[in-house]
Formats: sequence, structure tokens, C-alpha cells
Amino acid sequence: MDREFTSTLLENAVTSLSRLPGVGRKTALRLALHLLRRDEADAVGLGEALIAMRKGIRYCRVCHNISEDEVCDICASPLRDSSSVCVVENVRDVMSIERTGQFAGLYHVLGGLISPVDGIGPDSLEIASLLERVAAGGVKELILALSATVEGDTTNFYIYRRVGELGADVKVTQLARGVSVGNEIEYTDEITLGRSLLNRTPFSDVL
Amino acid sequence: MDREFTSTLLENAVTSLSRLPGVGRKTALRLALHLLRRDEADAVGLGEALIAMRKGIRYCRVCHNISEDEVCDICASPLRDSSSVCVVENVRDVMSIERTGQFAGLYHVLGGLISPVDGIGPDSLEIASLLERVAAGGVKELILALSATVEGDTTNFYIYRRVGELGADVKVTQLARGVSVGNEIEYTDEITLGRSLLNRTPFSDVL
Repeated sequence: MDREFTSTLLENAVTSLSRLPGVGRKTALRLALHLLRRDEADAVGLGEALIAMRKGIRYCRVCHNISEDEVCDICASPLRDSSSVCVVENVRDVMSIERTGQFAGLYHVLGGLISPVDGIGPDSLEIASLLERVAAGGVKELILALSATVEGDTTNFYIYRRVGELGADVKVTQLARGVSVGNEIEYTDEITLGRSLLNRTPFSDVL
Repeated sequence: MDREFTSTLLENAVTSLSRLPGVGRKTALRLALHLLRRDEADAVGLGEALIAMRKGIRYCRVCHNISEDEVCDICASPLRDSSSVCVVENVRDVMSIERTGQFAGLYHVLGGLISPVDGIGPDSLEIASLLERVAAGGVKELILALSATVEGDTTNFYIYRRVGELGADVKVTQLARGVSVGNEIEYTDEITLGRSLLNRTPFSDVL
């Protein structure tokens, strides 16, 4: 036998599975054999769910969040406040913020962060469409909810400057940074601790 | 929003993916979003490969290895020695032994090992069909290639006894056990070391 597998069907499935991130050839084989042992409906259901997802999902024309229609449920909802737009890196961040239940505005998914090292400039991201949304009017606050990293800070600053150039009456804010809830001072890194000292809040604001 | 995802298609895909072993809900979401970013052909290809595999693969009527036909390629091959049958726990073990290139006989996949603790008795395994194969004649050697564990030893012993009861002229052997190739004596566990001392081989056999 000069083939790794006795079945081409198995080999194809293993090859496709091993293209997933974090899945090597051994894991792919384990997954494939697991699917073979399960009810046919389960395994076929997985295949069909993946096909339906890939064929049915597109990106919202307005905010670039995933959507099944041209405009996503959030952008289309009359219950959301369209004057407040939260700028996030990716679709997962939309889900994270939705789970907090603290935001009732709309989103704008950039699709990444500016990172010259990785060759990602502003043109690779959905920044032009964000500026168009702001220029069109109606947006009163832009909340920059990007990661507290060098790339996040660079992107924040770039958007802040570009929005300023528009001359629109938009308040640009960013997520509060400081000691995470539940963290002990002793184990908080010194940069975070230093900044949260500088940006200390009047206690009366917390009450 | 009282839903975790903004898309039912995404939710279905994540739910199906998270039923895979070792894949939690977070990993499933990461995989799904990865598939969304990739070419449609890649993601749809994975789905189709899984469906084709699950629908097209069955188990060989003779040896219970995976197969695309009623009898697998190995059992059907005129180049393999049908007088030698290697008994293994599962399909992966068939692949492991095939990769050694040291075996030209046929296989018999038990589908597990006897494990009273897990409620797996001889009747849950393909032992009856193994005894039928032996009773039908033509098998001269049965190689027990099961794991060197309590369950493997129990299964080895059970098969050895049952084959003996058949009164057939069959040699029953098991894989050699001893110090693994490349292992240092210092780091070899004492049970293996003790047994390999007891079962020492004449040096002339090795030459």
C-alpha cells in the first residue's frame, strides 16, 4: 500500500479538515474517524451546516458585520440608536460587546487593525466606509473599541485624525482603560497601574 | 439582542462544529469565522468532503476496517497473505501498522478492547466474527497487536483462550514487548525493563 489511507473519501475529508487553523493531520484523522462512528445525520448535518453558512452569509453593506441579508439585523433594527457607532476590529468583538448588554447603538467592523509590520495599512481596512458614514451625518458619537495594543492605538489615532479632518460634529471616545474588574493591584502590570493612576476618576462618579 | 449570534446559519455551523471532540464553543466560532473568510470553494469543499465521506464509507464485511466497498482493498488484494491475520483495536492501528511496511497479511479490527470498567465485554467487539474467520480455516497465524495495557492484555488472553477452544491449528502470537528503539535504559520504566530482562533475546537472533 503506497497510500496513507485505504479510502480516498477519508483522505479527502482529512485533507480538508487539516486546512482548518490549529488542526494538524493527526487531529484531522481523529475528527474524521469520530464523524464516521457517529450517526450519519450528525456528520452529514455538519457538512450541510458548513455549506449553508458559507453560501448564505455575507457582510452587512453598512457595518460589515456578518449578515444573512444586505443589511444586518443590528443596522436594520429600529430599536438601536443610530447616532452612536462603535468601531471594532472584527465580528467576534461585536459579539463580545453585544454580550455585555451595555450598548444599544450600531457597529462598524474594520476587519483588522493598522499594522505596518504585517503590511496592513488604512486602505486594507473599512476605514473609508467609516468616514463616509460619519460624513453622511447623523452620527453623534464614535466609540473606538479597539484592543489596547500598539496596533489598536495606531488605528485609534488614525481614525481620530481623519474624523477631525471631516469637520463633522462628532464626539470621538475610546473604551476606558484601567485595572480590570476582579484584578488585584499586586498583580496588575505597571503600565496599566501607572495609567490608571494618571486617569483616576472622582469617587463620586463611581457611586 | 437575546441571541448569541446575529446569524442562524452561523449559529448552526458553530453548534455542529462544537460537537466535535476537543472543540469547544469558542474554537467552533473561530473555525466558522475562518471558513467565512476563506474562498467559498474551500469551505463548501470541506462540507462536501465530510458528507461524501460519511455517506460513502462503510466497514469491510471481513475485517471491519473502513472501506468504500463491501470488502476493503486490503482484504481484496491478491498480493496479501491471507494466512496471517493481525488483530488490532481500531482503524488507526491498521494505518500505523501499514506505515511500518513490515506486514503483508490481513487485519481484523475489533472496534475496542475488553474493559469491564467501561462496560465493554467481548460481545461489544468483533470477536465472534474473528473466531468465525479462524474456524473457516486458512488462517495459520493470528498476531495480537493490541495495546500493552490491562485492557489489551485481557483481550489478548480472552482471544487466545477462545481460539484454543476451536481446536484449530493456528499459531497465536503477540507483538514483542521491550525497550523502545531509541530509549535510554535510565529512563525506561521498571516494569518494561524487568520484562525485557526476563524475555531477553539471544544476540545471534538480532544479527
